[in-house]
Amino acid sequence: MTSATLDFYYEFASPYSYLTAMRITPLAEAAGVLVRWKPFLLGPIFSDQGYTSSPFNVFPIKGAHMWVDMDRLVARDGLPPVTRPDPFPANGLLAARVAIFLNDASRPSFSRAVFQAEFSGGRDIGERETVRQVLASLGHFCADIMAEAEAPANKDRLRAQTQEAKARGVFGAPSFITSDGALFWGNDRLEMALEHAARLAKAA
Amino acid sequence: MTSATLDFYYEFASPYSYLTAMRITPLAEAAGVLVRWKPFLLGPIFSDQGYTSSPFNVFPIKGAHMWVDMDRLVARDGLPPVTRPDPFPANGLLAARVAIFLNDASRPSFSRAVFQAEFSGGRDIGERETVRQVLASLGHFCADIMAEAEAPANKDRLRAQTQEAKARGVFGAPSFITSDGALFWGNDRLEMALEHAARLAKAA
Repeated sequence: MTSATLDFYYEFASPYSYLTAMRITPLAEAAGVLVRWKPFLLGPIFSDQGYTSSPFNVFPIKGAHMWVDMDRLVARDGLPPVTRPDPFPANGLLAARVAIFLNDASRPSFSRAVFQAEFSGGRDIGERETVRQVLASLGHFCADIMAEAEAPANKDRLRAQTQEAKARGVFGAPSFITSDGALFWGNDRLEMALEHAARLAKAA
Repeated sequence: MTSATLDFYYEFASPYSYLTAMRITPLAEAAGVLVRWKPFLLGPIFSDQGYTSSPFNVFPIKGAHMWVDMDRLVARDGLPPVTRPDPFPANGLLAARVAIFLNDASRPSFSRAVFQAEFSGGRDIGERETVRQVLASLGHFCADIMAEAEAPANKDRLRAQTQEAKARGVFGAPSFITSDGALFWGNDRLEMALEHAARLAKAA
């Protein structure tokens, strides 16, 4: 038996990525699966599909329903009421650069805190000050990290991770990829992705 | 306590409507909810949203993933392997006219049989002969029913039900609407819709 892993691709502007970020850790622990948190940018991937904005903006009736669905799901999951980001989608570029710069141990807690600021704290994560405060709240040295996160080498890391996501077939967020390359799309498929990851490890 | 009801809007061309049709009856019985089966046509509703075909055709990468997702879900639900309709989406007009013509007791079994012919039997439900055979397999007098189903009054019933769906906010299939007007979209929300319907009846 090898160790089970699951790649979790998320975008900070994505409401359903927020839901997954808030519930993946205990579920993965229960399933014996190690999660690799992989922030990426949906913008370039949506552009390739011909979208000019979030599909929730392109199809307003779907967007309106999505917020109703979010209200129901946070109630089910025991999360605070949803605050709807303005603008939507938020600009998650800086947060994604910081998340990818942080080490594997710090990335999940930073990412959850960004999502919480955005979707329950009513903060605009596109503002530098929001990202700075999230870092500070976790005890990080903000100025150093933000400078490094915006250095060319780290910008390239985020570009590469977005390209990697696209090359592996990711077309929306959240997406999950198991060690055999199987892709599961959407917060609703988290449990199924974890089961598949655990099954692969048992079979190996 | 009043009786709990749930309006189930479905389109015969819709893969996820098939999944719901195959599992809604035992779940609704367990929840004490009476389901009203409401066939309608997605075409006019999609046109209003600016789609020229099924979103699964407009966005091919989503369409490809949908079939992978369907393969996984039929395995989970204990259904036979999926046969992918050709053409997709199938033309469900005649089947919908027949379904709306049948009485409430016959509509669910006919609808399930149409979905099975389409998504596990490899049949084209756009062909009259397929619809005729489904009716015959259930012991109906096919010729009479098909003539009545295509009479102007019954065509109008289907048009009216499609308009009703649209007026109530339906934008995709399957959709569920509870007695308070709350709309739940997608096979993944069936359980939540049933819970809500049961809760409303208890509170009344």
